[in-house]
Amino acid sequence: MTPKIAKFLQAHTPATPCLVLDVDVVEQNFTAMRNAMPSAQIFYALKANPAPEILHRLVALGCGFDCASIEEINMCLAAGAEPAKLSFGNTVKKATAIAAARAAGIDLYVFDCLAELEKIALHAPGARVFCRLAVSSEGAVYPLSRKFGVSTEVAGDLLRRAVDLGVVPWGLSFHAGSQQTRTWAHEVAIGQVAMLFDELEADGIKLGMINVGGGFPTEYLDRTPAIEVFAARIARALTYHFGDSQPQLLVEPGRYLSGNAGVVVSEVVLVSQRDPADPLRWVYLDIGKFGGLIEAESNVIRYRITTPHDGTDDGPVIIAGPTCDSGDTLYDKLDYRLPMRLRDGDRVVLHNAGAYVTTYAAQSFNGFKPLEEYYL
Amino acid sequence: MTPKIAKFLQAHTPATPCLVLDVDVVEQNFTAMRNAMPSAQIFYALKANPAPEILHRLVALGCGFDCASIEEINMCLAAGAEPAKLSFGNTVKKATAIAAARAAGIDLYVFDCLAELEKIALHAPGARVFCRLAVSSEGAVYPLSRKFGVSTEVAGDLLRRAVDLGVVPWGLSFHAGSQQTRTWAHEVAIGQVAMLFDELEADGIKLGMINVGGGFPTEYLDRTPAIEVFAARIARALTYHFGDSQPQLLVEPGRYLSGNAGVVVSEVVLVSQRDPADPLRWVYLDIGKFGGLIEAESNVIRYRITTPHDGTDDGPVIIAGPTCDSGDTLYDKLDYRLPMRLRDGDRVVLHNAGAYVTTYAAQSFNGFKPLEEYYL
Repeated sequence: MTPKIAKFLQAHTPATPCLVLDVDVVEQNFTAMRNAMPSAQIFYALKANPAPEILHRLVALGCGFDCASIEEINMCLAAGAEPAKLSFGNTVKKATAIAAARAAGIDLYVFDCLAELEKIALHAPGARVFCRLAVSSEGAVYPLSRKFGVSTEVAGDLLRRAVDLGVVPWGLSFHAGSQQTRTWAHEVAIGQVAMLFDELEADGIKLGMINVGGGFPTEYLDRTPAIEVFAARIARALTYHFGDSQPQLLVEPGRYLSGNAGVVVSEVVLVSQRDPADPLRWVYLDIGKFGGLIEAESNVIRYRITTPHDGTDDGPVIIAGPTCDSGDTLYDKLDYRLPMRLRDGDRVVLHNAGAYVTTYAAQSFNGFKPLEEYYL
Repeated sequence: MTPKIAKFLQAHTPATPCLVLDVDVVEQNFTAMRNAMPSAQIFYALKANPAPEILHRLVALGCGFDCASIEEINMCLAAGAEPAKLSFGNTVKKATAIAAARAAGIDLYVFDCLAELEKIALHAPGARVFCRLAVSSEGAVYPLSRKFGVSTEVAGDLLRRAVDLGVVPWGLSFHAGSQQTRTWAHEVAIGQVAMLFDELEADGIKLGMINVGGGFPTEYLDRTPAIEVFAARIARALTYHFGDSQPQLLVEPGRYLSGNAGVVVSEVVLVSQRDPADPLRWVYLDIGKFGGLIEAESNVIRYRITTPHDGTDDGPVIIAGPTCDSGDTLYDKLDYRLPMRLRDGDRVVLHNAGAYVTTYAAQSFNGFKPLEEYYL
């Protein structure tokens, strides 16, 4: 938690649940990434957290944006982003959304099948397109290999078709998986991309861009490698495969830019020891899966949690949300321990919770409204 | 789809995704349940769908409500419900919510641990309380056994404590699991409850109510037993265990009342055959897990889907939502087949989708807004 957030919480004691995010940390992350990857174009994947305060700051820093929908494109434009720095990065787009994006000046579109390529050619003629490859996302907390991407062979065929269809075959993308902690994941994929670059060049198609996606981790309970380590691996792979004539590198960090910038503050609703003979307590918070912590479900993203009683005796707990849904259980397999003194009404803090929390929140399941958001 | 819904869709072609629900069907379901269980108090579990149009209709029919939060209580009161017909049915409640409910005249509260019982006694002194038992939910699509409920032994101890704490020990509840299709599930649990009734009566505590929860199924792709079958089993168990002096029966249908009353209309965004050598197509709809179809995730609730091309040649598909999240995949293990002619822009209908769709919707993940709702 940054001093700015601590001061805000002390001065205002905002109603819970809420997210409090220090936009300066987003800027620090952006600067660290820019320094680590000086030749890269950085496009923030705003699906992680599209708050206008974050977008405005990143626009001022010269950041671009990876947009998942025409709604996200419009949010970026409203924050002052140049159309040339936006990518329509969802392989699944309505025709009306493509046409609206093109009308707004967006020139960069992803695809991973012929039907989508034809749709882009029809509604955004002349645009630059890039094809998403399916690569291994082994080692990622969220593997992505099935829903998106095609084989190298099919990608080559589609990029050759692009010329005939009247769009510009511009590059290749992949995604090594979200919260990827293996530093060689991107490296391996770059080799796959490089082969296809060569193959297409032999056919007279010169691609100009390689998009290595996002997936760079935020630190939760486990330590994660620094961005410099990923950057060095990517740079090494690019040099190895492309030598002195490297394509434009594009990166799409989401979680990496906003994840560690915010905390979620929650109130304990109930501490229940339902069987007096069993020391296990259930701790019910006023935010759970449906309130925005969908990444904590199934024990996947492991937030560090602090309480007013830290340092005193603790014991094993299962942590759950406040709804009547049995699926609204966050940590039931992780051996979390919380202080024995924890009581209902206590406020707890979930750290590094600035990404993938706000927009996920259910609009009103069980009557509970989405968490409040504060940007400092 | 009812004629009323069909006529509405034809006349208005509403933007997708949307829910269109015929409130008359909710009334028909309520009437069927009342006829099948004439002695029961029916409390609608409004978490399934809390639309004011549904609440108003049910209030007019004399229905009560099982509320999960003070927000849901206020919605029922706003629809004209009497406080005496409301239950605060979440075992996890903030102290402030209990106090607000008590101030609004709510007299019935559930608990399943000492800490919650004490909280109720403090903030709603004199109220009637009932204890939730953990029972087997074997046979349910959504088992509920871990997050909620205590053993019969602990429940007995807690109800004995209730008297000293200044609240009225009023009954026992259980929940046999949502979309429960085994008609004997409630029957077995009633036997467990009856034993505890006897035991407490021997200690001078006369309980007055048994709450058999909800979980009664709506028909999706598989056939489900009629409500009359469940009602007969419950009646038989009550007669067997309680003879002529039966406690007040309370039922909490959610899905059963609103599930088959509505359809979700969606547009196909993309039909992707990413590998020309593989006949499997991915069909991306403009609604998925984050748009409200969270119950379809992991292939659990199997909606029947109709298209404009039904009756023509079909082929295997995986069905997914429109977001960039790999988890936004609905049916990837169910051998769904859809027409080969299906194209982007086609409108499809998901049937019996009136429950657990609207309030679940993420407020804006990927920039997509929650589905529109129309009540006829």
